[in-house]
Amino acid sequence: MTTATAPIVVTSELYAQVLHFYAHQMQHLDARRFEEYAASFTEDGVFQHSPGAEPAVSRDAIVRELVEFHKKYDPATVRRRHWFNHVALEAQADGTVKSTVYALVATIRPGAKPEINPSCLVHDTLVVEDGEILLKSRLITHDQVF
Amino acid sequence: MTTATAPIVVTSELYAQVLHFYAHQMQHLDARRFEEYAASFTEDGVFQHSPGAEPAVSRDAIVRELVEFHKKYDPATVRRRHWFNHVALEAQADGTVKSTVYALVATIRPGAKPEINPSCLVHDTLVVEDGEILLKSRLITHDQVF
Amino acid sequence: MTTATAPIVVTSELYAQVLHFYAHQMQHLDARRFEEYAASFTEDGVFQHSPGAEPAVSRDAIVRELVEFHKKYDPATVRRRHWFNHVALEAQADGTVKSTVYALVATIRPGAKPEINPSCLVHDTLVVEDGEILLKSRLITHDQVF
Repeated sequence: MTTATAPIVVTSELYAQVLHFYAHQMQHLDARRFEEYAASFTEDGVFQHSPGAEPAVSRDAIVRELVEFHKKYDPATVRRRHWFNHVALEAQADGTVKSTVYALVATIRPGAKPEINPSCLVHDTLVVEDGEILLKSRLITHDQVF
Repeated sequence: MTTATAPIVVTSELYAQVLHFYAHQMQHLDARRFEEYAASFTEDGVFQHSPGAEPAVSRDAIVRELVEFHKKYDPATVRRRHWFNHVALEAQADGTVKSTVYALVATIRPGAKPEINPSCLVHDTLVVEDGEILLKSRLITHDQVF
Repeated sequence: MTTATAPIVVTSELYAQVLHFYAHQMQHLDARRFEEYAASFTEDGVFQHSPGAEPAVSRDAIVRELVEFHKKYDPATVRRRHWFNHVALEAQADGTVKSTVYALVATIRPGAKPEINPSCLVHDTLVVEDGEILLKSRLITHDQVF
């Protein structure tokens, strides 16, 4: 069993696996399958979706946070798509993998072109356990200087 | 020989292969190499490029459909780029692979910034035969609620 | 040792490796780590960042070119993100790998939505030496017809 404290090497195989992990994870989020999104975190996973926000800790807290956050988007008319690009991985000494990713959020409303905003950086810490990837933590920073 | 009815496992290797397949396929489309795009489908492949459209069945029909559709874009001045993100694969019981992908279309015209519209979901069914990927069907849905 | 003149096969493993190479490379560029960006080229690498520009040859020249080019973007307030999509590789007879990639540049300024412009094609020639990827040349073309 590979634990979070064993050494880890970022192979091409792991890289493709991480890309695929993100694909399913973010499609869960945008489809409002919040339980499935939260299940991509470790049990004690930490998720801070905006720089100023209080981090949600644990899968239950992540679900609650997402339900609350999405109240401002009517599911009947508004769709959101979180796009990722340039997933850059770095093996850490503690056996985790640091992942830094570009993100753009597309919001699609009736009668308007998609709004592509904001541009963010995703700062993830991944663990690989028994061949399965989980998020230990996710912190989002905004590219825009306010 | 691997046929569409044999069991299939979505490995990291297959995942990278699908990403690469899409890269070449969509560059063919945007360069108006319609024969090459159609050749990425099975002989009896089905392509429905818009929710309301009649599906094109067979490679010849796909080429005709694309020639017709592109008449509204002057090749001398207008370029289109179909971007893909979050390719999510699921092995199906019948040996095919279901692929769900985010898409944004960038249209580039003289004297204007790229128009990023529409946002779509791509619903593909892939077959892997003798290590080669082909599209059995592609259906596009729009994210915008009209 | 694999040299640039040995035959090369584009495997799924190499494909994932190239995607990862680009992720780190472009994050270096956008973070203005120009030395690291230049180090992703061969010693005699050629970089032509705009169709009309004089190509920069050698890592030192690439750094100088980037320092000069970025003077128009205040690092304290403006962020740039170069997005890549549909990385299409082709093994060449001389042992190099041709890579053709879609690119969109997002520029993020205070008080405004990200500007997504221009749309480009990236034309790279990659060499793989001892398992390490380096850029032999990069030429950018713009999608917009002026």
